[in-house]
Amino acid sequence: MEAELRSLLLDIDAIKGSLPDVSQHDSIAKMEERIAKILSLSKAGISRRSKVKDMSAEVVDSNPYSRLMALQRMGIVENYERIRDFSVAIVGIGGVGSVAAEMLTRCGIGRLLLYDYDTVELANMNRLFFRPEQVGMTKTDAAVQTLSDINPDVILESYSLNITTVQGFEVFMDSLKRKIPNKNGQISSTTTGVNLVLSCVDNYEARMVVNQACNELNQTWMESGVSEDAVSGHIQLLVPGKQLVLHVPHPWLLHLE
Amino acid sequence: MEAELRSLLLDIDAIKGSLPDVSQHDSIAKMEERIAKILSLSKAGISRRSKVKDMSAEVVDSNPYSRLMALQRMGIVENYERIRDFSVAIVGIGGVGSVAAEMLTRCGIGRLLLYDYDTVELANMNRLFFRPEQVGMTKTDAAVQTLSDINPDVILESYSLNITTVQGFEVFMDSLKRKIPNKNGQISSTTTGVNLVLSCVDNYEARMVVNQACNELNQTWMESGVSEDAVSGHIQLLVPGKQLVLHVPHPWLLHLE
Repeated sequence: MEAELRSLLLDIDAIKGSLPDVSQHDSIAKMEERIAKILSLSKAGISRRSKVKDMSAEVVDSNPYSRLMALQRMGIVENYERIRDFSVAIVGIGGVGSVAAEMLTRCGIGRLLLYDYDTVELANMNRLFFRPEQVGMTKTDAAVQTLSDINPDVILESYSLNITTVQGFEVFMDSLKRKIPNKNGQISSTTTGVNLVLSCVDNYEARMVVNQACNELNQTWMESGVSEDAVSGHIQLLVPGKQLVLHVPHPWLLHLE
Repeated sequence: MEAELRSLLLDIDAIKGSLPDVSQHDSIAKMEERIAKILSLSKAGISRRSKVKDMSAEVVDSNPYSRLMALQRMGIVENYERIRDFSVAIVGIGGVGSVAAEMLTRCGIGRLLLYDYDTVELANMNRLFFRPEQVGMTKTDAAVQTLSDINPDVILESYSLNITTVQGFEVFMDSLKRKIPNKNGQISSTTTGVNLVLSCVDNYEARMVVNQACNELNQTWMESGVSEDAVSGHIQLLVPGKQLVLHVPHPWLLHLE
């Protein structure tokens, strides 16, 4: 919209030269003033907080990290600032994944990788996070829009793709492997570029694909699921080589029994 | 902003008559087109969904209630539409209260009464719900802004006041007592105008005030609390005359022991 308004200013300037009566330049000036006002109004709608270089523990209302750094002061978390060095991949930005992403963003996680192939629909509004004005956007784009406004310090990577396709799986694997240097320019010694994968998908195939990727990459991950009646759910931590590897029977097999 | 854009259109129309060369009318037409586009862009930013008269169980992406009405089809909830006849009062729109309000709004509750005296600060951003662009607004106003966009079917009442003051307590009591006719024009036979009070406050005094109000009004309520280290919490249902009346020792007394 800002670009359109700037083009309009140029149009008006072009007209100005063609006006025979110099006294009419006043009304042109009035129009230009009006456009400047519209420009400032359109900008007011997207006031984002500026980036914060270092997490501060100062107890003031304007510090977005004051309540989190308090956990360090109370001895609950030893070194809260380290959260900035962590990368988390979230597969499935639905009822579970979107809230996990929002919570991690508010906590000040360093980097989030978001995977989904779906778009936002009004039918999703019974769960937290997405808003009606985002209907039609891809879930990853809508998430990046909201999350980057909530906390511009988090590095967000959006992958609108289906990990159960051959091509999608390749991009998924490559993105997990890619290592980003931290603020001191160091590359972590972990096997992948992420510290944790959260599986927040809603179907058997995608769950098995996350399982396969994490086994291949020796990647620690968490599996989650919500029952269809929405009254129960499960979360499970999986560390390849330590915890048992996930093996969920296909729903079709369960049905046979 | 829309009004400003419409005035701009009138300005341009006035200029049009003064142009000596009729061929220049083309550029005026181009400018008018541009303004129309800016108008539609500015409207796109605030696209709210329209109100829904009756909850539909139709399984389509555009139905905001399809997933909730499914609970009825599955036999989990007998008559889901009845949620529209219920009023809930939420005292304290912080970490617990704001999420309770959002969840009830997404579920399509009939009416929400929101009480808080605080304003939104950046320090609140470690919890869900509020966004940085709402900093400085009262928590009840910010909540109404977000909730009414999420679900325009919910009747929202905002009370920015402190219930622990004499005056605040009076308004609190009056608002709980006030009965609103339902869509059939009937007044409910309950003792108050609300079906449930959720106490989501963060201090001893406010908790005791909610307790006092609900005892006086014979009002069912739920008490909640989060530990200071954010790793535990409690929820308790209180039905005056049935469950035990809440009696929490003052933290100062606990400290003495």
